[in-house]
Amino acid sequence: MGSIPNAAHEARLLSRENRITNTSGLAPNYLQANLLILPSKYASHFHDLCLRNPVPCPILGITPKGDPHSIQPKGCITTSDFDIRTDFPAYRVYEKGKCKASRRDLLDVWTDDHIGFLIGCSFSFEDALSAAGLQPRHQKTGTIVAMYRTNIPLLPAGVFADATFIVSMRPYKLQDIEKVREICRPYLATHGEPLAWGWDGAERIGIRDVARPDFGEPQVFEEGEVPVFWACGVTPQVAVESAGDKIDGLVFAHEPGNMLVTDWTADDLQKLRAGDVSR
Amino acid sequence: MGSIPNAAHEARLLSRENRITNTSGLAPNYLQANLLILPSKYASHFHDLCLRNPVPCPILGITPKGDPHSIQPKGCITTSDFDIRTDFPAYRVYEKGKCKASRRDLLDVWTDDHIGFLIGCSFSFEDALSAAGLQPRHQKTGTIVAMYRTNIPLLPAGVFADATFIVSMRPYKLQDIEKVREICRPYLATHGEPLAWGWDGAERIGIRDVARPDFGEPQVFEEGEVPVFWACGVTPQVAVESAGDKIDGLVFAHEPGNMLVTDWTADDLQKLRAGDVSR
Repeated sequence: MGSIPNAAHEARLLSRENRITNTSGLAPNYLQANLLILPSKYASHFHDLCLRNPVPCPILGITPKGDPHSIQPKGCITTSDFDIRTDFPAYRVYEKGKCKASRRDLLDVWTDDHIGFLIGCSFSFEDALSAAGLQPRHQKTGTIVAMYRTNIPLLPAGVFADATFIVSMRPYKLQDIEKVREICRPYLATHGEPLAWGWDGAERIGIRDVARPDFGEPQVFEEGEVPVFWACGVTPQVAVESAGDKIDGLVFAHEPGNMLVTDWTADDLQKLRAGDVSR
Repeated sequence: MGSIPNAAHEARLLSRENRITNTSGLAPNYLQANLLILPSKYASHFHDLCLRNPVPCPILGITPKGDPHSIQPKGCITTSDFDIRTDFPAYRVYEKGKCKASRRDLLDVWTDDHIGFLIGCSFSFEDALSAAGLQPRHQKTGTIVAMYRTNIPLLPAGVFADATFIVSMRPYKLQDIEKVREICRPYLATHGEPLAWGWDGAERIGIRDVARPDFGEPQVFEEGEVPVFWACGVTPQVAVESAGDKIDGLVFAHEPGNMLVTDWTADDLQKLRAGDVSR
């Protein structure tokens, strides 16, 4: 494979050259990834956090310590031409739990002590919903998906001990929910099926006012629709914010909407589900 | 390996012959497993439930459909002489979410359509705590660990959509909690580090009265101690109860305290953590 150009590699090159600023809809069928890069001391805690909370924090790949050019497992990025410090369109820099800067690349701030994690994102199951005639509302209306803080505890791991799940919300009719669940179920590596639904479900996970999301934009409900909630890839960034000054050194993440296009495709989901590719 | 008798195999033979009724303390250093056996139709839902909730439901091994004599991955049971229908000291039979019977073996009720799941249990991290001078209270007092229903949602998968985590509780001094967390952290395949602690932690996960557990026995608190909570392997059985009549056919589980002694040892935990043995 290595050197055969594909749509995913081309998307990474466009991102590297900062010729795009939103990867939504780019290279359809390829899975996109969220990013978190930490000093090695906290990487094992974050790795544990992901393994304990695979629904909000599904690991697609990890860099060896200090090596920005390769990802384990190898199927995630098959081109030798790769740099985790440049191949996202835009990055965030965190210090002591606070976002301090936005950058086009991480070339000046990356150190030999950093380890990067690629985390599954919701774009893949959204494609599957659209293909089944159940296109998410925010895609139809051209808005940003509504996201909420919840009371669902992120199961603690090391310095990451006080965070809760962030969820995204898409309105669906009550009678479509079983179909929505079935369509999303195989996408275990990218948040999988919803974790709550209905107005009572919203209340149970601690969302008081669905009309006022904590991130993104409010969504319009049509007659007979109820909110359906999925675990959201913003969760790892909020976990870093919660850890605050327990983390020494710089942490990096992607800018929301500016993901990495990986070489995994929807066809790899079954392998990812079973953990067959985890080394 | 296969035919060399070891302490784990001997413990399984004692269990098969019903010469013991409690596997606690049996074959130290070998990991013990909880059991759930389901009709194949629901096995993929239960598998997803475990993969989405690995802290309360960590998979140690799975039988091929209809084959009671082998476990995948092979490291879990290395002897060819094995039968999942007999090698636990005692079993429970569930029908439509209700426990209907207790049995010494499953030979008459097992079908070619059944699939068995072995789930990690807390005995392993308890040994590690004792070795570090932090023996769990219930071991010192010869009581059954206190267990509680919580408000933490078990992330839904298929027919398993309405359950919450069950937790076990061990009292520790506030200043020992970081050490307790560190000792348990590597035991990711057997519930890992605690998920909440302190009186405020109890309240946050929905436990109103620590003195009145839902299962097991109340524990005595010494001066300065607070409750520390771990995910508990009773959770899968409660998930089956919650699924109720959504499940057609018989489901089997172990009788509490009557586990299977596997051939995994504490030395295998690092491999289990990384998913290196999951096939």
